[in-house]
Amino acid sequence: MWFCKLNGALKGASKTGTKTILARRPITSLVPGEPNEPKILTDVPGPVSKALFEKLNSINQSGSVQLFANYDKSIGNYLIDVDNNVFLDAFTQISSVPIGYNHPDLLTVFQDDHKLRALINRPATGVFPGHDWPEKLRSILLNVSPGLPQVMTMMCGSCSNENAYKALFFSYRNRQRGENVDFTELESSSCMINRPPGAPQLSLLSFHGAFHGRTMATLATTHSKPIHKLDVPSFNWPIAHFPRYKYPLEDNTRENHAEDDKCLEEVEDLIVQYGKNENPVAGIVVEPIQSEGGDNEESPRFFQGIQQIAKRHGVGLLIDEVQTGVGATGKMWCHEHFNLESPPDIVTFSKKMLTGGFFHSLDMRPKQPYRIFNTWLGDPGKLYLLEAVLNVIKQQNLLDQVLRTGSKLKLGIATIEKEHPDLLNSTRGRGTFLAVNAADTELRDKIVAKLKLKGVIVGSCGDHSIRLRPSLTFQEHHADILLDKLQQTINEVK
Amino acid sequence: MWFCKLNGALKGASKTGTKTILARRPITSLVPGEPNEPKILTDVPGPVSKALFEKLNSINQSGSVQLFANYDKSIGNYLIDVDNNVFLDAFTQISSVPIGYNHPDLLTVFQDDHKLRALINRPATGVFPGHDWPEKLRSILLNVSPGLPQVMTMMCGSCSNENAYKALFFSYRNRQRGENVDFTELESSSCMINRPPGAPQLSLLSFHGAFHGRTMATLATTHSKPIHKLDVPSFNWPIAHFPRYKYPLEDNTRENHAEDDKCLEEVEDLIVQYGKNENPVAGIVVEPIQSEGGDNEESPRFFQGIQQIAKRHGVGLLIDEVQTGVGATGKMWCHEHFNLESPPDIVTFSKKMLTGGFFHSLDMRPKQPYRIFNTWLGDPGKLYLLEAVLNVIKQQNLLDQVLRTGSKLKLGIATIEKEHPDLLNSTRGRGTFLAVNAADTELRDKIVAKLKLKGVIVGSCGDHSIRLRPSLTFQEHHADILLDKLQQTINEVK
Repeated sequence: MWFCKLNGALKGASKTGTKTILARRPITSLVPGEPNEPKILTDVPGPVSKALFEKLNSINQSGSVQLFANYDKSIGNYLIDVDNNVFLDAFTQISSVPIGYNHPDLLTVFQDDHKLRALINRPATGVFPGHDWPEKLRSILLNVSPGLPQVMTMMCGSCSNENAYKALFFSYRNRQRGENVDFTELESSSCMINRPPGAPQLSLLSFHGAFHGRTMATLATTHSKPIHKLDVPSFNWPIAHFPRYKYPLEDNTRENHAEDDKCLEEVEDLIVQYGKNENPVAGIVVEPIQSEGGDNEESPRFFQGIQQIAKRHGVGLLIDEVQTGVGATGKMWCHEHFNLESPPDIVTFSKKMLTGGFFHSLDMRPKQPYRIFNTWLGDPGKLYLLEAVLNVIKQQNLLDQVLRTGSKLKLGIATIEKEHPDLLNSTRGRGTFLAVNAADTELRDKIVAKLKLKGVIVGSCGDHSIRLRPSLTFQEHHADILLDKLQQTINEVK
Repeated sequence: MWFCKLNGALKGASKTGTKTILARRPITSLVPGEPNEPKILTDVPGPVSKALFEKLNSINQSGSVQLFANYDKSIGNYLIDVDNNVFLDAFTQISSVPIGYNHPDLLTVFQDDHKLRALINRPATGVFPGHDWPEKLRSILLNVSPGLPQVMTMMCGSCSNENAYKALFFSYRNRQRGENVDFTELESSSCMINRPPGAPQLSLLSFHGAFHGRTMATLATTHSKPIHKLDVPSFNWPIAHFPRYKYPLEDNTRENHAEDDKCLEEVEDLIVQYGKNENPVAGIVVEPIQSEGGDNEESPRFFQGIQQIAKRHGVGLLIDEVQTGVGATGKMWCHEHFNLESPPDIVTFSKKMLTGGFFHSLDMRPKQPYRIFNTWLGDPGKLYLLEAVLNVIKQQNLLDQVLRTGSKLKLGIATIEKEHPDLLNSTRGRGTFLAVNAADTELRDKIVAKLKLKGVIVGSCGDHSIRLRPSLTFQEHHADILLDKLQQTINEVK
C-alpha cells in the first residue's frame, strides 16, 4: 500500500495535551536558535504589517499579502513578523523554503569568494558559462536526478514548464520527421508569422484541477482557479479528469480503482480525438500530487497507466515536481513513489530547488542550439545555495526526518478527523506533504485563520483543503505544536 | 535631430593607431584593477574551454556556448576565460552586466547582514514580503521609473513580458466591461476549460523582427529568427512591419518619413482588421530598438505615431526595455528619447536591471489580487545588487560617460564605414548601444570571429549586423582599443 496506515497511537497523546508532551522531551532543533513555540502579540496582521500594507499597495496590487515578515529574525521553522509575532511556519513561502529560515549552512555559502563572485557576475550561462558550471550541474543537479541524464536550468517554475513544453513539441515533431530530416523552407518562413507548418497545431493534455504556472502556455494547462485564468486568451488543448478518490483509501479500493480506470480511459480518448481533429497531443503534463488544485493525490497505478498511454501514443510525459519535489513526500521526487517502469521524459522543478529547471531524457534534447535558450538560463548563485541545502539534507538524513514527522502529523490529523468527521475529512498525503479537507470553504478559511491567530501558518488549496508544506527540518516537536493548535481550533469551531 | 552627427575628428586618431593613443593618455578605469588591453594566448575557444564544452554538452544541448569564463578573475570590462585569454567585452553577457565584472561596490553588498539574509531567505514576496520591501521597491525601482507609478517584480525578461501581456488583456477587458462590473459565472466556468468568454479571443500586435522572449506568449510576439520559433504552436496575432531606414539618416529624411507613415498605417489597419475578425488587439508590444532582430532603430516620430494609434483605438502600449534599458542609450530608458506626450502604459525590464519586472500605469493595475502573481515575484537579493548598481551609475555620472564613449565609438565606426562602404554600412544607435551592418552574413560572422581572436567580444544580431553592448563603465580608452581592433579586422577582410 502506498499510503500510511492509521493507528491509534497518537490518540492518547493528543488528549494528554501538547504542553505535557513538550515538557517531557528535550527539544533539539535541527536549526539552532529556534524559539520553543509560537507567540502571538497582536492581531494578525498586526499594526506594523497593516501600515506597511498601505505602502506596498500604493505601489502595486498587493491584495494577496498576509503579513510582513522580519527575515533577519526568522529562524528555522519560525517566521517572525514585523509586529514580533512568532509563527510556526508549515507553509514556508508556498513550499519554497527547504531547510528553514536563516539556516547557518546557507548564511555562510557566500563567505567563499568564488561563490560570491559567481553570484555577483551572473553570466549568460548558455554562452559564457563559468569554469565550474559543467561540474556543478553534474555534482549538484544530476546527482539528484530521478534517473534522467540531462538537465537545463531556468529562473523559476513557470519558465521551467514553458521551456519543457517546448521540448515536448520539439521532440514530437522530431519523431514525426524521422531522423536527420531538416526544417523545410516553408516551416522556417511560416513560423515567423505564427502559422503552420512551422508553428504547428499541436496540443498538450493537462488535467482539471492542475496548476503548472501563470505564464500563457503554462496557464493553458492550469485549471485550479478562475482568478488565475480569467481574461487571458488560451489554447484549445485537451483537459482530462484527475481521479478523485474516496477516503479512507483502504476502505474504498474498488471504487478508487474504477475512478482510475475511468480517468485513464478519458486520457486515451482525448489523445485519439485530438489526433483526429488535427490538433495532436504532443505531451501529457501532470503533477504527482495536484497541489494548488486541492492536494489531489493519485495511486501509482494511475501514473503507471498514464505512462503506458503516453508510450503507446508516442506522446511525451512531463511530471511537474515544482511543488512536490525535494523530499517533502519522503522521497527526493514524489513520482519516485510510483514505481514507474522507466523515468518520465521530463521532470520540472523550482521552489525548494531554489533554481528552476528540468531534467530530461536524451529524446527531449533539442538537436539544435538556441531552441531552449534565454539570457541567463539559471543562476550560479542559486546553485551554490542549493548545493548547501542538498548537503544538509544528506548529512542530517532529512528524508528520514520527513517520514518520521510526517507519520506523526498524518496520524494526528487523522485522529482529529476521526473525532470530528463532520468538520474534517480525507486526511491524505505522503511524508509531511499532507492535507485534510474541511467540510466547506467557509470552515476551511476559518480554521486557517484561527490557526494563524494561534501562531501556526498553514496553506489553503482547492475549494476546501488545508495543506501542510513545512520545511524538511520540521520535527516531531513542531508536529506536536501544530497538532495541539489544530485540536484547539477544531474544539473552537465545532 | 535624434542621432549624433558625424564629424571627422577621429579619423586622424584612428590612423595614428591605438598604441600611440594609449601611450599618450593616463588610463584611469572606472573599475579598479582592469588590464590595459586584451591579450589572447590560444585559439578561441582554447583547449581548456574545449574540454569543458565536451563535459557541458554531455549534460545538455550546449551548442550556443562560445567559451568558458573565469569569473573570479574577470574584472570591469575585461572577461578572462579559462585559457587565460583576456577579452575586452563589448557584449557583456547579452547586454546584462551593468557596471562590469566584479565591481567592488557589488562585491561588498552582502557584507551587510540584513541584505545577506534577504538573499538567503527569498520569500514569496506577494504573500509574506520582508519589512523593507515596500520602501525598497520605491527607493530603488520607482526611483528610476519612466513616469509610471506602479511596479511589479519578476525573475526574468520573459516572465516580465508574459505577465505584462496579461495586464494588457486584463485592462482591455476591464475597459470593455466598464467600471465595477464583475466576472460572470459563464466567464468563470469557461475560462477553466480555456474557452471564451472567460478565455477570450484577444490578440497583441507585434512587429516583424521583434524579440520579446521565448516562452510561448512572448514567442508569439517574437519574429527575429526561425530557430526561436520552429515547432512551437502559436497565436494568430497581427504582425506589422517595423520601419527600415536608409542611412545616413540625414540624407534620407523624406524616404524615412514615408517609411514611418507606411508602417503606422499598417499598424492601424491591422488593429481595425483584427477587431472586425473578432480577435481584437488588446495591446501593442514594441522594442524602442529592435535588438536581437538587427538593431533596428526608429524615429521618435514613429513611436509618437504608435502611441497615438494605441490611444485612438483603446489599445495598451507596452515598450519592452529588457535590452535597451538602464542607461546604455544615454538615458535610463531608451524610449525617453522619443518625447512621448505621456508615458507608455507598460515598460518591461530585466537584464542590466538584474531583476525582471515592469512599470505600469494605474489603468494596468489588476483590480483583484492573484491575477499577476507567482511564488517569488522577484528576488530581494537582486534588488540589493541593483541598488548598488544604480548608486554607482549616479555617483559616477555613468550616463554622461555613456554619451562620451558612445559619441567616440559611433564616430569611429562611421569613419571606418566611410572608408569601407563596400564592407560596412548603416552605423547607428544611441549612446554605446550601437550597431553597424556588414555587407552580408558571412562577412559579419567573419568580422565578429576575427575581433574575438584579437580579444574583443561583440555581438551579432539580425541577418548581418554587429552590435555593441558594453557595460556603462566602458570608457574612451576602451573605445580606442575596440576601434583599433575593428580597423585591423577590416583591413584584413577587405
